Amino acid sequence: MKNEIYLETTSLTEAIEKWLSRLGSEDAIKPLPAETIAAKDSLGRITAEPLMAKVSSPFYHSSAMDGYAVRFPDTFGASETFPKKLKMGEQAVYVDTGDPLTDGFNAVIMIEDVNITRSRKPEDRSQKSDEEIEHIEITEPATPWQHVRVIGEDIVATELILPENHRIRPVDIGAMLASGHVEIKVRRKPKVAIIPTGTEIVEPGTHLKRGDIIEYNSRVLGSLVSEWGGDVVRLGIVPDRFDEIKATILKACESGDLVVVNAGASAGSEDFTARAIADLGEIILHGVNIKPGKPVILGWVKNRPVLGIPGYPVSAYITFNIFAEPVIRKWQGLVLESAEILKAKLSRQIASPLGQEEFLRVKVGKVGKNFIATPVSRGAGVLMSLVRADGFVRIPAMSEGLGAGAEVDVELLRSRKDIENTIVCIGSHDNALDLLANSLKKKYPKLSLSSAHVGSMGGLVSLKRGEAHIAGTHLLDEETGEYNMSFIRRLLPDKKIILVNLVYREQGLLVLKGNPKNIKDFKDLLRDDVVFINRQAGAGTRLLTDKHLRELGMNPSNVKGYEKEEYTHMGIASAVLTGIADTGLAILAAAKALGLDFIPVAKERYDLAIPAEFYTTEMLQAILSIIREDSEFRNMVINLGGYDISDMGNVVYEG
Amino acid sequence: MKNEIYLETTSLTEAIEKWLSRLGSEDAIKPLPAETIAAKDSLGRITAEPLMAKVSSPFYHSSAMDGYAVRFPDTFGASETFPKKLKMGEQAVYVDTGDPLTDGFNAVIMIEDVNITRSRKPEDRSQKSDEEIEHIEITEPATPWQHVRVIGEDIVATELILPENHRIRPVDIGAMLASGHVEIKVRRKPKVAIIPTGTEIVEPGTHLKRGDIIEYNSRVLGSLVSEWGGDVVRLGIVPDRFDEIKATILKACESGDLVVVNAGASAGSEDFTARAIADLGEIILHGVNIKPGKPVILGWVKNRPVLGIPGYPVSAYITFNIFAEPVIRKWQGLVLESAEILKAKLSRQIASPLGQEEFLRVKVGKVGKNFIATPVSRGAGVLMSLVRADGFVRIPAMSEGLGAGAEVDVELLRSRKDIENTIVCIGSHDNALDLLANSLKKKYPKLSLSSAHVGSMGGLVSLKRGEAHIAGTHLLDEETGEYNMSFIRRLLPDKKIILVNLVYREQGLLVLKGNPKNIKDFKDLLRDDVVFINRQAGAGTRLLTDKHLRELGMNPSNVKGYEKEEYTHMGIASAVLTGIADTGLAILAAAKALGLDFIPVAKERYDLAIPAEFYTTEMLQAILSIIREDSEFRNMVINLGGYDISDMGNVVYEG
Repeated sequence: MKNEIYLETTSLTEAIEKWLSRLGSEDAIKPLPAETIAAKDSLGRITAEPLMAKVSSPFYHSSAMDGYAVRFPDTFGASETFPKKLKMGEQAVYVDTGDPLTDGFNAVIMIEDVNITRSRKPEDRSQKSDEEIEHIEITEPATPWQHVRVIGEDIVATELILPENHRIRPVDIGAMLASGHVEIKVRRKPKVAIIPTGTEIVEPGTHLKRGDIIEYNSRVLGSLVSEWGGDVVRLGIVPDRFDEIKATILKACESGDLVVVNAGASAGSEDFTARAIADLGEIILHGVNIKPGKPVILGWVKNRPVLGIPGYPVSAYITFNIFAEPVIRKWQGLVLESAEILKAKLSRQIASPLGQEEFLRVKVGKVGKNFIATPVSRGAGVLMSLVRADGFVRIPAMSEGLGAGAEVDVELLRSRKDIENTIVCIGSHDNALDLLANSLKKKYPKLSLSSAHVGSMGGLVSLKRGEAHIAGTHLLDEETGEYNMSFIRRLLPDKKIILVNLVYREQGLLVLKGNPKNIKDFKDLLRDDVVFINRQAGAGTRLLTDKHLRELGMNPSNVKGYEKEEYTHMGIASAVLTGIADTGLAILAAAKALGLDFIPVAKERYDLAIPAEFYTTEMLQAILSIIREDSEFRNMVINLGGYDISDMGNVVYEG
Repeated sequence: MKNEIYLETTSLTEAIEKWLSRLGSEDAIKPLPAETIAAKDSLGRITAEPLMAKVSSPFYHSSAMDGYAVRFPDTFGASETFPKKLKMGEQAVYVDTGDPLTDGFNAVIMIEDVNITRSRKPEDRSQKSDEEIEHIEITEPATPWQHVRVIGEDIVATELILPENHRIRPVDIGAMLASGHVEIKVRRKPKVAIIPTGTEIVEPGTHLKRGDIIEYNSRVLGSLVSEWGGDVVRLGIVPDRFDEIKATILKACESGDLVVVNAGASAGSEDFTARAIADLGEIILHGVNIKPGKPVILGWVKNRPVLGIPGYPVSAYITFNIFAEPVIRKWQGLVLESAEILKAKLSRQIASPLGQEEFLRVKVGKVGKNFIATPVSRGAGVLMSLVRADGFVRIPAMSEGLGAGAEVDVELLRSRKDIENTIVCIGSHDNALDLLANSLKKKYPKLSLSSAHVGSMGGLVSLKRGEAHIAGTHLLDEETGEYNMSFIRRLLPDKKIILVNLVYREQGLLVLKGNPKNIKDFKDLLRDDVVFINRQAGAGTRLLTDKHLRELGMNPSNVKGYEKEEYTHMGIASAVLTGIADTGLAILAAAKALGLDFIPVAKERYDLAIPAEFYTTEMLQAILSIIREDSEFRNMVINLGGYDISDMGNVVYEG
């Protein structure tokens, strides 16, 4: 099978330069032609020409107050001792705010500054009462043009209201209408035609069968286009057939200013995108030295830029941001805003392949005074790494990685304020934490709970290093039968830690539905036909396993699979479901998630360890109030099954 | 005429408290009920419940690479020296990235790591080539599950994808679809019914006659609602008729969660809003101690909150932000984001009425190291003060004002970055500056030019105080006949200033169309039937007037109106148009704006004075490059009329 040209190793900088210069050179990508729309509907659009006022506002002298319009010479000499009477209709006219001044009148006296002489009391203030009032009496002369809004006070005809290339805000709409613009010229929205391809791809909502992949990349890319101010034309899913892909690209070139093919950008037996683009036009570049996102294609068909975007969701997101956003912005006459940069400390060492610029997704939290960046999953297929990420750290192509504690620049995906309002929880995972995150967001919308799952021991180490506000932990001390306390004393001798119980939860052996191997308890692990799957050293569940084996006098070397380790409850469940093992120890929620049967083995205590320095902060008190008082949260935990909340929120240890 | 209850003097804090507590207490305004929408169309909406994954992603083990699926035990023992052959179809199956693994297969070997033995070369890679390949040869054993995306690698069924109260981003849409959600529950968008009222109010585009006021407030308020995530129902304009207003409020209560009446909130003879609300329901409050925005009405009709919003555009904007935004945010389960605060130095003294909290609009620029806040027009009717403002400074009710140089908190309306990219120009106004602002925005979209018009002398004083990057100046030294230089030497002896010519422009006498008084030149100012209007002391145009009078040997005291001063070219034009004066000296553009005739009197030099410390900055060089090289800009200036650009951009003085 021949290698495709994407094994080119163009650097990112060079790739961007080639792409933009083909589009018209970095500074000179011309805005698209303007279109005319109603000014009232122009919120968020970009002006395509300067707007000069067509009319002044006000365009006649008008009263700035409710009162009486007068000619100021008529008021000369009025004083407290010698009030002056003005005859209504001739020397004075009642005006409401905004009423035009009759010719010759050039001042307004406020209603509260006049005494009125009526023929009779008006019944209804809604009727103009001039007729009934014969005179007004004033005790002070008016100054010329007092309480008058003169022509052009707000807007003067011909003056610049808005410049070209301006994003229209609510007040701007007012100014456009006030200055006589009913229709205005704005930049046309760039149209992006997105073609999802792949024989295995199905629309969301389709009844899924093995091998199907739900099509969602086009919706993510399309939503990005909307955010950038463009319009999206999403074409139907095209199967991996060369001619169909070619025909669809040609069709898309008619409707889109930019055409996006997703995916088929790689070099597999069914990756036709590059060939199709080459056949129809020209490939500017295939393959960029970035990770993820390497197999991107930059092409040119029928005088239209065509992007071949890789299929993995993270690769798709990153390459689309890099190559599509600048084009869509510049077509609107906008500059590309650079992301906000936050300096943070990397919480752990990261090795990165030499020769590729890596876009590492990180979660960021402010723990004490430091911003701590913790890498999340690096897989190009893990969309949730983007959902959960607070930002990107770029590791340069010429770097082999970064050390723990290294200061890094994080390109933020969330605001700095949001990050400062995030509680960082590192440690063992429990599904109740998900519910807690949810209840927190619901009750305290400005706060977030971010959890990273590294096992109980890893969590305590994070507290030690000052990288987390909370560690979830369920470490059983085999000697004392106690949970967590001895480990905290040992690992964090100098730190005052408050231990708050979250739940007691059931751990059990997971087996396939119907328990085909008829496993009853730990003793069955010695059977020849039973393969076990273990958790990693340092996991609370691993300690629980070891305790049971010891109590039953079982030698681990007689347990088949004891040496094979998974890192999460779900890893155990997945191993059982897929037949890698027959059973493993995990929580009920993991069994439920994959439809496995569950044989209860032990009830264990799962606590939250919180350093005293954070315990009293507003953020932590908010989360504790939910644990302790929010009955909705507590009921949701019970409904998960396998939980006992009798100690939930209680302080079980301070030291 | 009786005073309305709005003469209540409730403080802003108390008013907000009354309003929100009536709506459900500050923290407890409940979100509106949820609605179900398509996940793909949910960008920007707010989740109304936690989203747990319905299916795992992937939901079957799949290949992470293009290559061959194998059973890893079959690969044991393979090495460079003893390669192992695997029979296609039985021991190895070709897989593309994403293909499901056949049951029992549990590792993938990358395509580049195998040698293949074919029966014949395939013609077309688009056909699965398994049939033609008989064996693959491997030189290394596979590790279990290598290059396999196991079930749940990205998303595990039951895990939390998004919490409640989360604003949906593009990646979130991907995660929802990937985890099996085709429809989701989001917060319903609050509906705001807006009723524009006023007999004098007309729709934009109507042929205007004296007394008409263009209705635009509803479009500004409606656009704010859109920005806050709500929907708008705008009702037709209702004239000032009590029964019609009542009926429309009742109708609006059926369609809106919040009803807004604009205006009629004050106490004029045609202000029915308060009476109508009181008649239909209850007035919570009428009148708040703020400026502008005092006559706001907070009411309650048919279990709906009703806001009576004042008619002046700035009052409307400020009160709507204060009283509508928190409600609309909280109905979506969101928190009210507080505005970004920037510390700045106030450029001039501001007196403010005791007992009213004033919302002062300011322009802000970063000049050197300081952020300088300069108040713009304070009139409640000057919408352009909002268009031009960069932020608000709140002057507390108990303060009588702020001194020049006072440090103030500016609640920003633009981003800090935009403000840092703003060139501050203070001094004399010229219409060419508007065009320059426009060309700058067009060519350098991230830069802005902000100009404040305080006369030539005021501009030089601003440079002296370090409050501006540029001063526009046209000061004629009568003794030398030179422009600007002697003034700079005198006013700024310690500052190195570079003087760049912008234009030569014609000043002339403005007269009514057709010149009814047959004014020919300055000498006519001595005529008994001619009233002049003057510019303020310190204005370049004033100096020009004085020079002419002196040269002609005319005594100013013989010029009727010499002592009456206007502050801008447009002020002169307006005075002539409205008959306050018969003529005055101003530039051609002002005559054109109001349709006046123009009698040329003198050509004067209008320069930009730039301190050397700013001259070489990127921002200033950008604007100079437009002045010097941008032919579009230069042509637009010529088309204004009355300009000579022969020295445009030339340095005329350095000192």
